[in-house]
Amino acid sequence: MEPLLMDLANNVFLEGNALVIIDRRKLPREEVRVVCRGYEEVARAIENMVVQGAGDIAITAGFGLYLASLVNDRDIIRKAAQRLKATRPTGFHLAALVDKLLGLAEAEKGSPQAILSFLRDILKRQRSLSEATGKNAEKLLAGGDTILTHCFPGAALLFMLKAARDNGKDIKVICTETRPYLQGARLTAWSVSKLGLDTTLITDNMAAHMMSIGKVTKVFTAADRIAMDGSAANKIGTLQLAICARYYAIPFYILGYGGPDRKTETGDDIPIEQRDPREVLEIMGLTISGPEEKALYPAIDVKPRELISAIVTGKGIIYVN
Amino acid sequence: MEPLLMDLANNVFLEGNALVIIDRRKLPREEVRVVCRGYEEVARAIENMVVQGAGDIAITAGFGLYLASLVNDRDIIRKAAQRLKATRPTGFHLAALVDKLLGLAEAEKGSPQAILSFLRDILKRQRSLSEATGKNAEKLLAGGDTILTHCFPGAALLFMLKAARDNGKDIKVICTETRPYLQGARLTAWSVSKLGLDTTLITDNMAAHMMSIGKVTKVFTAADRIAMDGSAANKIGTLQLAICARYYAIPFYILGYGGPDRKTETGDDIPIEQRDPREVLEIMGLTISGPEEKALYPAIDVKPRELISAIVTGKGIIYVN
Repeated sequence: MEPLLMDLANNVFLEGNALVIIDRRKLPREEVRVVCRGYEEVARAIENMVVQGAGDIAITAGFGLYLASLVNDRDIIRKAAQRLKATRPTGFHLAALVDKLLGLAEAEKGSPQAILSFLRDILKRQRSLSEATGKNAEKLLAGGDTILTHCFPGAALLFMLKAARDNGKDIKVICTETRPYLQGARLTAWSVSKLGLDTTLITDNMAAHMMSIGKVTKVFTAADRIAMDGSAANKIGTLQLAICARYYAIPFYILGYGGPDRKTETGDDIPIEQRDPREVLEIMGLTISGPEEKALYPAIDVKPRELISAIVTGKGIIYVN
Repeated sequence: MEPLLMDLANNVFLEGNALVIIDRRKLPREEVRVVCRGYEEVARAIENMVVQGAGDIAITAGFGLYLASLVNDRDIIRKAAQRLKATRPTGFHLAALVDKLLGLAEAEKGSPQAILSFLRDILKRQRSLSEATGKNAEKLLAGGDTILTHCFPGAALLFMLKAARDNGKDIKVICTETRPYLQGARLTAWSVSKLGLDTTLITDNMAAHMMSIGKVTKVFTAADRIAMDGSAANKIGTLQLAICARYYAIPFYILGYGGPDRKTETGDDIPIEQRDPREVLEIMGLTISGPEEKALYPAIDVKPRELISAIVTGKGIIYVN
């Protein structure tokens, strides 16, 4: 059986007029269903990281707009679009898809059914895009590689590794745990080991050491947004991996799925989401610091183009350096 | 009142014939006393990181040898020395001090009292050394600096910051949390905020981002061991801070207390302690990954000399680049 997160349709789906999301904050210990009966619940689920990853967030928000469209009130659907677009600022896919669906809803023939069939089509295309991206990325792998990855780069990583395995390439994977939400420990290490690959978990601060002792041959991460100047935003911590990879002359690849956002000229134009600092002061609900300290939680960092070896999309490999 | 960890005598001390150690794994939430009635209990406390920091570990082991010397049996004191030296391999202070005390115990006039007065003297010298190192390091600070630090670099960091404060320099401090044991979150952020300084906690993976947006002007860490070639070993995660600091042309300073170990020629000669991987698979007792993953826990990494701007000791500042 393929890993649960290899296909979004397995973990974000409709049940009647409700959207069910498998809570990624609880995986792999528990498979908890979060049931959203309206767009506000979907918006909160996105904000609270029940679902993550730029593409997956966008489609989930699309389903939120679908739920709003069922009310058949133009004001409500516009309010829903605004609310959903405000949930997470860094990925551009979310706003683009919500605007597209809002246009559909406002067109003369627009109906909940039109939105739904558009979303069903997008879900299929997302799977194809992940698979195509993964298969293109697989060409960058050689037997004996140990790749290091950060956060959960989405299904493309799993398609890449599955293709490598099926082609008889022996690949090992090192996953950084990815504080504060531990997506690397919980989602990536779990999904990769389900593919039967040798999977090792490390804390975020061990990456350079693993590189320094020759244990990492390639780095692969996703991107929340790629700017027209070739710089890319992704989960906090990706920047220091890219800097360290450069120091040790290890290729740093981005699983981009699509290409750059035409509306974002440079890395400086990408908004850095600032999340609640309590998420740093606590780990899984336990306070880890004293009462007087404050914390910061920038959720995203930006890699300049010079640190990126190539961006892999569904269409091919773009060598940027 | 000065922070608890500013003077080892406040948190590692004798009560009758037992050694009391304030458990650093529980600070700052609880002040738990670990009472060791023999050298084996002291050895386990060191292994389990009840106490940390190369100098502090060495003196704690010294007290373990003192407890063994009370039995007045040459075989037992030799066994104790061997056991204590095997607890943590990276710092050279531990083995050096235990060997010194073993020599004292085996000399004709050797008695528990001789060991004890030697240790009491060392405790005082340790405080003076921390203070002198901190005051030398303070010369590297300018008003308006924001320093980034990792793990708990010991009392020298606190003496440096106190001296800067007393000299009217406005210094801000960013502490990385330092997984897996979170010494940065629990010990450093807590101690620094007790000095009244603006203190911000970040996760280990946010350091490069803070540098990239100009929020870090200097980096200070300790070292468990400095080799004769100028490379230095310290808590895992220090290496990537040094690489990122170099990328952003931010000075990277080591609070060395003493100088290099004359018996360690190069960084490659420093043993890397491998700790129990369960410490990575769990956070504060909670399992964070799936059942099939494995983990690695190298406790130490090595910074090559080229990444180090200066090493600060009790005698002065050695510019190595």
